[in-house]
Amino acid sequence: MGEKKKLRVAVDAMGGDHAPSEIIKGALQAARQFGLDIIFTGDKTKVEQELGQNDVSGVSVEVVHTSQVIQDTEQPAIAVMKKPDSSIAVAMKLVKEGRADAMVSAGPTGAVMVAALQYLGPLPGVDRPVMGGPFLQLAPKTVVLDLGANVGCQPYHLVNFAVIGTVMAKTFYGIENPRVGLLNVGAEEGKGDPLSKEAYNLLKKSGLNFIGNVEGLDIPLGKADVIVCDGFTGNIIVKFSESLGQVVKNWLISNLKDVAGIEQKADMLYRLMSPGAVMGGGPMLGINGVVAKAHGRSRAPQIAGTIQQAKIAYDADFVSMLRNELERVKNIFETK
Amino acid sequence: MGEKKKLRVAVDAMGGDHAPSEIIKGALQAARQFGLDIIFTGDKTKVEQELGQNDVSGVSVEVVHTSQVIQDTEQPAIAVMKKPDSSIAVAMKLVKEGRADAMVSAGPTGAVMVAALQYLGPLPGVDRPVMGGPFLQLAPKTVVLDLGANVGCQPYHLVNFAVIGTVMAKTFYGIENPRVGLLNVGAEEGKGDPLSKEAYNLLKKSGLNFIGNVEGLDIPLGKADVIVCDGFTGNIIVKFSESLGQVVKNWLISNLKDVAGIEQKADMLYRLMSPGAVMGGGPMLGINGVVAKAHGRSRAPQIAGTIQQAKIAYDADFVSMLRNELERVKNIFETK
Repeated sequence: MGEKKKLRVAVDAMGGDHAPSEIIKGALQAARQFGLDIIFTGDKTKVEQELGQNDVSGVSVEVVHTSQVIQDTEQPAIAVMKKPDSSIAVAMKLVKEGRADAMVSAGPTGAVMVAALQYLGPLPGVDRPVMGGPFLQLAPKTVVLDLGANVGCQPYHLVNFAVIGTVMAKTFYGIENPRVGLLNVGAEEGKGDPLSKEAYNLLKKSGLNFIGNVEGLDIPLGKADVIVCDGFTGNIIVKFSESLGQVVKNWLISNLKDVAGIEQKADMLYRLMSPGAVMGGGPMLGINGVVAKAHGRSRAPQIAGTIQQAKIAYDADFVSMLRNELERVKNIFETK
Repeated sequence: MGEKKKLRVAVDAMGGDHAPSEIIKGALQAARQFGLDIIFTGDKTKVEQELGQNDVSGVSVEVVHTSQVIQDTEQPAIAVMKKPDSSIAVAMKLVKEGRADAMVSAGPTGAVMVAALQYLGPLPGVDRPVMGGPFLQLAPKTVVLDLGANVGCQPYHLVNFAVIGTVMAKTFYGIENPRVGLLNVGAEEGKGDPLSKEAYNLLKKSGLNFIGNVEGLDIPLGKADVIVCDGFTGNIIVKFSESLGQVVKNWLISNLKDVAGIEQKADMLYRLMSPGAVMGGGPMLGINGVVAKAHGRSRAPQIAGTIQQAKIAYDADFVSMLRNELERVKNIFETK
């Protein structure tokens, strides 16, 4: 067995609330810890200045200068189109051209998504990247998707989410034969709106480990390993949960104010209920390439963690597995 | 001003987990407290036996014998059709025939709904009764509807929910000009699935106090007085919240086990998060008559509380107000 080629990660040095300093620190940390090569995209002067303040010995670091940055306030599609020399776009191009194996950014989600679609493209059968993961840390291995990127789905979208969730649960959470549930208003077959009914029929034939409908109450209980829903429902639940977590935290602090350390406990519970506080990073699902998005608020450890996610995806051949599974399922329905 | 006629309430004595004893106790309590006449429907022998064990002095009580009871396990539509002499159906008929002014039951929700539709009918523009109310006691004056009865809505359904919620917020919560929000995936106009987009346009023209889109995070914050959504989304949120409340309760008990009285505090919080624990009863919305449903688990105080809700609805002329508002909105769209 020959020596494995080192993974080359293109890191957007300019994206995120604490860019470039925390991005660069985190990337260097990951490079050392996981044995990676890093290519930063961003303002060369700023990046090199920052690198000068860190220990880069023994780490292979390259900087590709970019003249543009996409801001959080910009309309993503327009910003990506108008800024081909942005740090996000250039990092994507490095992956596209085979100069990097993966791309990581803490920049605006919409812009990363649009750039991923434009430069790397979606996997077959996927219309746009899927947002998903174990959003509720009280059920830390239950992958829920879509969480808001795909609103107004067709039944086949839900089947694709199930495929993506299954591959994700296997790759990232080591679940051998993930149980897939369809989020619905009742447990029995035949329940729900037209989308649910048709998706149920497709999922039954999908060859996935489909366990039928699951209800809202089953999410915190982790009844399935993968729970699929329209991004409309997913978005509402995720935001509801985060806000409820905040209200619960405040309630605990004011109702148990004599308990020592209640602020810390209440905050811990908030984090368990809040996807925003914990979804530090994850792979962008359904893209023809390894792209991992870090939360905008990320500091060095979260950046390193997101780069690790990219490494896991790369090492497990996540994108090929996903492509094959999407094609397998597509063939089932096309030959019927 | 002449003496006001006493309100006559038909009470299903056989429905609910603690029927008939707790139903009868609660109804007698309400009769005395609010000055009502009660007509019980149910097995005459059982009801009279129970009445014999209570003080009925000064209360006008009548018993209408019924030979059938609808069970929780039965398919509602079939049960209502096959059991015209059930305690639920007969109570509805008393209202229909003008022998009672309102009907209260703790029986199976589906059966009460079907019987209400069959014997009293829906208000114009309403396809089936709407389930709604302030489901989250952390935001105790925010009416959310529909919570699961209407799945797969058309845009005009959401407008009707907004009308119903507005009249409900005025009548039951004393809110003068209730702010109506459309539950959606983003705050800006133009967001969401086709249903949301079209409902947004209709709500803008409805003459209601429409404040635009609200998000999942706005529910616990009580950002609107009335929040409308498809029953699919509503059902998922309500069940998610209840289950999350249970998980949070368990987490607190195990993570703060040294705190004196933590079980009680945790249970209090659970009840604030759990619609099931607090939705003791409420008016059935969109029915051409005053029907109030008590939770199956209700004991005497909850039965009395539900009867009080029926009295509030009756005294405020809730059904007429609702009919007029539904017609007003219908006319707006028909003349455009």
